[in-house]
Amino acid sequence: MKAEIIAVGTELLLGQIVNTNAQYLSRKLATLGIDVYFQTVVGDNPSRIKQAIEIARERADLLVFTGGLGPTQDDLTKDVLAAYLNRGLSIHQPSMDTIEQMFSSRGIHMVESNRRQALMIDGSSPIENEAGLAVGNGLTEDGTHYLLLPGPPREMKPMMEGPASDWLRSVLGSEEPLYSRLLMFAGIGESSLEAKLIDLIEAQSDPTIAPYAKEGEIAIRVSTKAPNETEATVKLDRTVEAIKQRVGEFLFAQEEITLEERVVQLLRSSRRKLSTAESISGGLLAELITGIPGSSGEYSGGVVTYTNEMKHKLLGIPMAQLQGEGAPGAISESTAVMMAERVRQIGDSDFGVSLTGVAGPAQAEGQPVGLVYYAVAQRGKPTAVFTGHFSGTRAIIRIRAVKAALYQLWLKLKEE
Amino acid sequence: MKAEIIAVGTELLLGQIVNTNAQYLSRKLATLGIDVYFQTVVGDNPSRIKQAIEIARERADLLVFTGGLGPTQDDLTKDVLAAYLNRGLSIHQPSMDTIEQMFSSRGIHMVESNRRQALMIDGSSPIENEAGLAVGNGLTEDGTHYLLLPGPPREMKPMMEGPASDWLRSVLGSEEPLYSRLLMFAGIGESSLEAKLIDLIEAQSDPTIAPYAKEGEIAIRVSTKAPNETEATVKLDRTVEAIKQRVGEFLFAQEEITLEERVVQLLRSSRRKLSTAESISGGLLAELITGIPGSSGEYSGGVVTYTNEMKHKLLGIPMAQLQGEGAPGAISESTAVMMAERVRQIGDSDFGVSLTGVAGPAQAEGQPVGLVYYAVAQRGKPTAVFTGHFSGTRAIIRIRAVKAALYQLWLKLKEE
Repeated sequence: MKAEIIAVGTELLLGQIVNTNAQYLSRKLATLGIDVYFQTVVGDNPSRIKQAIEIARERADLLVFTGGLGPTQDDLTKDVLAAYLNRGLSIHQPSMDTIEQMFSSRGIHMVESNRRQALMIDGSSPIENEAGLAVGNGLTEDGTHYLLLPGPPREMKPMMEGPASDWLRSVLGSEEPLYSRLLMFAGIGESSLEAKLIDLIEAQSDPTIAPYAKEGEIAIRVSTKAPNETEATVKLDRTVEAIKQRVGEFLFAQEEITLEERVVQLLRSSRRKLSTAESISGGLLAELITGIPGSSGEYSGGVVTYTNEMKHKLLGIPMAQLQGEGAPGAISESTAVMMAERVRQIGDSDFGVSLTGVAGPAQAEGQPVGLVYYAVAQRGKPTAVFTGHFSGTRAIIRIRAVKAALYQLWLKLKEE
Repeated sequence: MKAEIIAVGTELLLGQIVNTNAQYLSRKLATLGIDVYFQTVVGDNPSRIKQAIEIARERADLLVFTGGLGPTQDDLTKDVLAAYLNRGLSIHQPSMDTIEQMFSSRGIHMVESNRRQALMIDGSSPIENEAGLAVGNGLTEDGTHYLLLPGPPREMKPMMEGPASDWLRSVLGSEEPLYSRLLMFAGIGESSLEAKLIDLIEAQSDPTIAPYAKEGEIAIRVSTKAPNETEATVKLDRTVEAIKQRVGEFLFAQEEITLEERVVQLLRSSRRKLSTAESISGGLLAELITGIPGSSGEYSGGVVTYTNEMKHKLLGIPMAQLQGEGAPGAISESTAVMMAERVRQIGDSDFGVSLTGVAGPAQAEGQPVGLVYYAVAQRGKPTAVFTGHFSGTRAIIRIRAVKAALYQLWLKLKEE
């Protein structure tokens, strides 16, 4: 089944809010095996809403609306769709009772316009809204299905988790569900990964192989429709195995997690601790790790040493290492090694990770923008040090360098 | 001028990413006086991209595309639009040179597909991409304007801030221009700020007053269309003055900068330095400061002390302060004060800022989630300490706490 998501609301067109509903609904529909071919955003304007319906009606079997079910004059979705389908609107008494009850229980006078939230398009099924007052509508005409949901995510999501999904399953009938696997990669660029898989990607039909890149990470989703999980598993296993044979060394997870989440998982399961010493990345590595709930068990802390003095005072690195005639300097392999080793010792941790380099815009110590030395120190093992050349803006260089360091840490954790 | 934003990418239809580009572009186009009537999302499919172009062509004067300019087989935007307009595609040599230079400087073999990123539709103007390899395109045919931008926000936004806006202004031509002022607020919640301005906002017609909230910061844009800058200035000045009289104490900037950028500006102009000691915020404050180009002159560094041992070893805070019968504990006003003072001394800085508290999801030391103590130490002045109660997710609590601490630092810098 082909779906189109139509978000109604001028606030979206003004950029006042982000259309997170479209993402949530797209994911939710995918898990039901429904393909979303278009997402549309239209303002609170009757003729443009009608136009969006006409277009979507031509190219989709299912139109999922969010927004425009509220009490105000700007909430037009039901009115416009009813007019388009030549149907009337009637009060849904159970919803009306709920609205009246709510107002009387709170001792507030009910404004007449609140009755609008109980309206249903004639011939539609009610989609109950437990978190708000606007009842949802589901209806089918001439083989096209229409699902109307409110805009506020805290109302829309519970409806979609329950009664709206039930309604969708009932109209889906006998279509085959979609099964998929997610593969997460790091330590390799998007174009290099694709080059290694290009024949698989180009030959794909079933299962499909869809790569998408974030900074320093690449996800590949492998999907197939099948009558049941057993048949899906056979097809998915074959494709996933073929991908793993090519690029398995870069595969850090088979679920939707970040590289830092995977690293924290492995630290946790092996009861190890991490400390960090950052120069170029300025706390970004610490921030990514501590952004993970419960990471305090795996992370003792770290330092952000943006000056030579701080590297000396906080980490005890000799000033002669950092500056002066013939000194290796702050941006050097040997300083990266010292930073990683010292912070590991101070934190009494199993691993110490360090980064030093040039994020730009200007070069530093005569070294070019994008040059980064990073090191992984490990208790009882020799310290490994790496050189990276990263391109992009200051922000991109920082995130790529941090992901590269996390990748090396992940390799060590995986080997254990 | 009526615009439609067309985001190209199957990853959006699968719900793998949120279409934040549509919000950003909608706001940006509004500041140029361009009205967005529709936002469309379409997958990496040539016939559906073509269909989206045909529809948008009918209802808009300007089509702004994001996505589909990359090197892979899935990146089709230029190809499809060129075919639709019966135009060819040619290599843009300066972009090609940049791509080749990047690969050779990093000693990586350039995959042939990377050449695709230097393609331009014949007759279009190049829109330079300083943060990535895919060159943007701008062209006009039969009164319709087409602007092609890459999908990654880190590339698209700098283009839109510079060359893409320049191109748009050139095609806007003789329309009455929009003039606007941006007012940036911190230290006050969105609803409190709106409550103080509600009569101004409700009475607005010209200039318009549009508030936008981010975590810990609120922007208000005051806009008017006028034949010339002098007439616009009179109208804008009057409204801005009225807003300042109500909430001027929270106004940290009159340009699009973040609170941390403002703080770094003030540190720079007063030749002061900052150090940070973070527990709850785990490096986020350091990361925000060091994310600003050139901040190494204003920031010596800091510590992320996620354990009592690290607070003791790195900052010299006595263990008796942190744990044991009757100790104030790590999450206390007095620990926040010590952290700020010690890190200021270690960094030999003018200011030391600290944060300690509970980000959740679980409480800590018997203290509730969202409780944060933060302190600002200043050379030769008594240390100020604050208590905040923040709500939201772990990530939101962290960013709100950091912005609250930055606000207090900004107040001190402003007073000087």
